[in-house]
Amino acid sequence: MKHIIETCFSPALFEYFENKDAIVVVTDVFRATSSICAAFENGVKSIIPVKSVDEARTYKEKGYLIAAERNGIKIDFADFGNSPEKFERSIVEGRDIVYSTTNGTKTIQLGVGCKAVVIGAFSNFSVLVDWLQKQDCDITLLCAGWKNKFNIEDSIFMGAVAEALLKTGKFETICDSTVAAIDMWNEHKDNLAQYLEKCAQRSRLRKNGVDQCIDYCITMDTCNVIPYYKDGVIKNLID
Amino acid sequence: MKHIIETCFSPALFEYFENKDAIVVVTDVFRATSSICAAFENGVKSIIPVKSVDEARTYKEKGYLIAAERNGIKIDFADFGNSPEKFERSIVEGRDIVYSTTNGTKTIQLGVGCKAVVIGAFSNFSVLVDWLQKQDCDITLLCAGWKNKFNIEDSIFMGAVAEALLKTGKFETICDSTVAAIDMWNEHKDNLAQYLEKCAQRSRLRKNGVDQCIDYCITMDTCNVIPYYKDGVIKNLID
Repeated sequence: MKHIIETCFSPALFEYFENKDAIVVVTDVFRATSSICAAFENGVKSIIPVKSVDEARTYKEKGYLIAAERNGIKIDFADFGNSPEKFERSIVEGRDIVYSTTNGTKTIQLGVGCKAVVIGAFSNFSVLVDWLQKQDCDITLLCAGWKNKFNIEDSIFMGAVAEALLKTGKFETICDSTVAAIDMWNEHKDNLAQYLEKCAQRSRLRKNGVDQCIDYCITMDTCNVIPYYKDGVIKNLID
Repeated sequence: MKHIIETCFSPALFEYFENKDAIVVVTDVFRATSSICAAFENGVKSIIPVKSVDEARTYKEKGYLIAAERNGIKIDFADFGNSPEKFERSIVEGRDIVYSTTNGTKTIQLGVGCKAVVIGAFSNFSVLVDWLQKQDCDITLLCAGWKNKFNIEDSIFMGAVAEALLKTGKFETICDSTVAAIDMWNEHKDNLAQYLEKCAQRSRLRKNGVDQCIDYCITMDTCNVIPYYKDGVIKNLID
């Protein structure tokens, strides 16, 4: 029997997709999961996602490195915002980072009752898909979106993941979100940067002067990492 | 200043889109809003949407005509299921109908705090768009979806509506859902029936033997009606 793929366009819809037997893949392409992959690629030891800025502040007082933004802007006391290029090896290697963002880090915590929670971005696309297709279970693709709304960049990424998995023949879907995401991916994969100019988040990043990372965030396979979330901490499955 | 268009892919996301100054357009292409338009086209006096089958039963005892389905199947005590062709003039003209469906009728009630709630389907597309563009206010396009999940048929319809409204120059959008819906519409409008074969709901209707209405549900401009919901009742704005 084939395993099921479903795509959830918003964290606020996750309860309608909850499948305890599924691996949950979380993405927040612009920029949390791209940054998390970059941090692990550069040797970070662990990342602790926290929901509130206040929680992040408490960890700051304990000596943790802090990555935190709201609405695309770095929180004043944080060491990092949400820009992947800032997680340089010289700063993050061997360190534990506490992370809090507008959409991504909250979404990561949603799948805690499921089989596993892993983190995807264009940067770890192939290594993630290779690993997923070896797991014998259903897969729920969970987009971080923007403040509980659908966004284009996360959905189109999940379309790429879903298509790659369906091609293996081990999976199937009757999920309209998955079908639509795959179509978005196939229609725009050859001019992705141009298409993503349409995204609301693209405009927000430009407005906030933090859009230099866009090319990085949509480039495939720059990171050989599979971040996974368990017991409140994100670690790298590939060590 | 231009008015804003936003598209909400699921009733469960409506709280994140709520805009008291907006007209809410509700669609449930397969099949509730297509059926409601057909009923008004055939002279129904009013339609009372109710959430539960129990409420519908209470109205039945009071002598109302009842249209009710769950999961695409007509409820035993109902006079109609959710098939538009059943609302024949000889049966419905001048009558009041109580209506309860899996997705559509619940969704209609969500916009009650907004400026107005109107009902759209391919069958009343042009008359609805003409009316909308004359209103000087924001517009929220609300898809009924399937059990709070995104569906393709409602989203693609809203893409058609959004595109037509944006063409007037009176509206603008920075909403990713709207952008994606418009793209879906433009990419598939020339082979809509074929594309909608991919919909999960298309398969459900076929399985339940109630898919004879698909052509009707995706045919433009067969109904000169604008159903609007106010004070618990749907009436026709064009009388």
